[in-house]
Amino acid sequence: MLTVEEARERILAHFAPRESEEVPLTEALGRVLARDAIAHEELPPFANSAMDGYALRAEDTRGATAEMPARLRLVGEVPAGRVYAGTVQPGEVVRILTGAPLPAGADAVLQQELVTVAEDTVALAGEVSLGNNVRAAGEDVRPGALLVRAGTELGPAEIALLAALGLHPISVIRRPRVAILATGDELAPLGTQPRPGQIRESNSPYLAAAVTRAGAEPWSLGVAPDRADELRARLASADTADLILTSGGVSVGDYDLVKRILSEQGHMDFWRVAMRPGKPLAFGLLGTTPLLGLPGNPVSAAVTFELFGRPAIRRMLGCARVERPTVRAVLEGEDMPRGDRRHYVRARLRSRDGTLMARATGAQGSHLISSLQGAAGYLVIEEGEGMVCAGSVVPVLLLNDALPWDDA
Amino acid sequence: MLTVEEARERILAHFAPRESEEVPLTEALGRVLARDAIAHEELPPFANSAMDGYALRAEDTRGATAEMPARLRLVGEVPAGRVYAGTVQPGEVVRILTGAPLPAGADAVLQQELVTVAEDTVALAGEVSLGNNVRAAGEDVRPGALLVRAGTELGPAEIALLAALGLHPISVIRRPRVAILATGDELAPLGTQPRPGQIRESNSPYLAAAVTRAGAEPWSLGVAPDRADELRARLASADTADLILTSGGVSVGDYDLVKRILSEQGHMDFWRVAMRPGKPLAFGLLGTTPLLGLPGNPVSAAVTFELFGRPAIRRMLGCARVERPTVRAVLEGEDMPRGDRRHYVRARLRSRDGTLMARATGAQGSHLISSLQGAAGYLVIEEGEGMVCAGSVVPVLLLNDALPWDDA
Repeated sequence: MLTVEEARERILAHFAPRESEEVPLTEALGRVLARDAIAHEELPPFANSAMDGYALRAEDTRGATAEMPARLRLVGEVPAGRVYAGTVQPGEVVRILTGAPLPAGADAVLQQELVTVAEDTVALAGEVSLGNNVRAAGEDVRPGALLVRAGTELGPAEIALLAALGLHPISVIRRPRVAILATGDELAPLGTQPRPGQIRESNSPYLAAAVTRAGAEPWSLGVAPDRADELRARLASADTADLILTSGGVSVGDYDLVKRILSEQGHMDFWRVAMRPGKPLAFGLLGTTPLLGLPGNPVSAAVTFELFGRPAIRRMLGCARVERPTVRAVLEGEDMPRGDRRHYVRARLRSRDGTLMARATGAQGSHLISSLQGAAGYLVIEEGEGMVCAGSVVPVLLLNDALPWDDA
Repeated sequence: MLTVEEARERILAHFAPRESEEVPLTEALGRVLARDAIAHEELPPFANSAMDGYALRAEDTRGATAEMPARLRLVGEVPAGRVYAGTVQPGEVVRILTGAPLPAGADAVLQQELVTVAEDTVALAGEVSLGNNVRAAGEDVRPGALLVRAGTELGPAEIALLAALGLHPISVIRRPRVAILATGDELAPLGTQPRPGQIRESNSPYLAAAVTRAGAEPWSLGVAPDRADELRARLASADTADLILTSGGVSVGDYDLVKRILSEQGHMDFWRVAMRPGKPLAFGLLGTTPLLGLPGNPVSAAVTFELFGRPAIRRMLGCARVERPTVRAVLEGEDMPRGDRRHYVRARLRSRDGTLMARATGAQGSHLISSLQGAAGYLVIEEGEGMVCAGSVVPVLLLNDALPWDDA
């Protein structure tokens, strides 16, 4: 049997980042940056006022008090979006609005609430320090700064920063196309009525959603019955995919048609992986297209996609890290028995006064689709003897990227 | 000044869930369920085998041992997707494959590895208990069960469950349309070169991305210069929106054109909210369309969108809870000074051996766009005197839904 890590390593060796494409920033949400984004400008691009007020020379306010206010001459105004044409001379002030460039000669801004204006004279009842209410050029970003690292998924914050620096359009990695094929005579495709002995197929809708969440484009090949010609035709139609995912038909030790077709058409390995759920796994090349054969049980398919399929997609997207974060949490609820293989237990997570708490979502049979709901992560119960007791600290593989650092 | 809670309450009073629409499950990812999804069937729909093996009557194995194996007669086979036509009689077994319906008369399955087959005789070296390797009908879901509650955002797990129960297509709430208008002569729209004194506009790309993440459809009204006719025209074009977001021009105490136009065209309130950043806020109705006026500073716009805009969108989506979770975490890094208003501090989060740790992302000026990056939440520093010291437990408003329960 392979360990999870060995199986993942073998799979990842077959994947590399895909080519890049340019997209407008307005369509970049959730895409992965292809190259480091470097600032070519300063942000703010010029010193500007943080307030509505008066731009002045700080030294002109020296010694000003409520009893002896400094009186300066109002010589002009600069609204946001304009540039003051002149230079502020000793004894002069310029009315300035928030965001407007600091006029030449000025080195501070006094907010309007603190002055008295009479005709063209502005009286200040105190000293103003150098740089007061001024946002310096380059205070946020300096030219040459690394804004966003290649391999980062772009969220609202990254998009704002790229927009502010004019990096539009932006190079992102093309979304990999992931073909999805469910197999088995017992499966009634979405929207059809099951015949006696059939169940409604749910793995391909699940995988399409999970593939989308991983950043790739799902491509449904539908549900293939256990007929050799059908299976061959469906698989052949997907030869332009970046990855083919199948579910079902790869159990070790049985005589499944899927295994036979895969073996005759490609270079396939059929692995037993030391994990629960989801032991049987197939991986190989169908022609030149990588194919990952997931188990048919819904929970096994979900867990093996998370552990092997998603990392392959993230590698194709050029992500620096292809795995989800693992954190440590305190087990609550039932004690968990160890077994002969590592167990991934669907778990809810919560924070109790600063401590992360994890609890199994309930019964853990690999056919229990309802147990996938509400799982924020997988509790990892390593193989061994005895029980992991409530109150122990256990690793949890998160199913989201909310907590960016590993600590397990 | 209003508290954050008072302002939010006043805003939310103007929003109700939008109408529903039917979508195929294949397009339901990220949509919000309109009505409770109730099971009309059992899952699994019939008792079936968890293994490849032999279906039999448990009582026929009574007393079997390695020395005295039970010998049963192989009378047929049932693959997945088929139904065995007969009834298993005393002394008989039926070859059964994983997922196939348990034949009538049989009440257990023995996995194939544990039997010896010679012609049509199957020998068992031990007793088999009732229900062994049988997945009972309804074990996962019973008819009438609440599968997914109305107001839930649909992820892969919910989609799998709805597919397995045949709830396709499914009713979801229509995505609200949110118009976004940035205002100010100083703003150069995305893709244009700033004139002297201008900066690149980044609030509307930010808000479009954040609105999308919130589950609504952004509708860009572009950037309006400070001209009354332009502002009126842009706002009038958005009268079919579910919500208009503006950024800039709503400061209390200044004479912004935006305030004047909003006041003359609608029933607007201009609020000072007791928070930092983002104090000035406008809210009201423009005709019958709610308008939320956010501050122009990028960080202030981001925080006020999160506190007031996103909850309005989630209310329109019918979400049971419209706010993000708040958790408690241990402050690390610098001590944080209290001030005269509640401070929302952009913060990174990590887990250290089961304890959630929060740290400010760096300088917190409301013009520092780079400080939005990497923030998993906002540290909430309540108003008051003195410092909140590193090591204290502080509430953190999460910027994702990873930890579903509040504990603050």
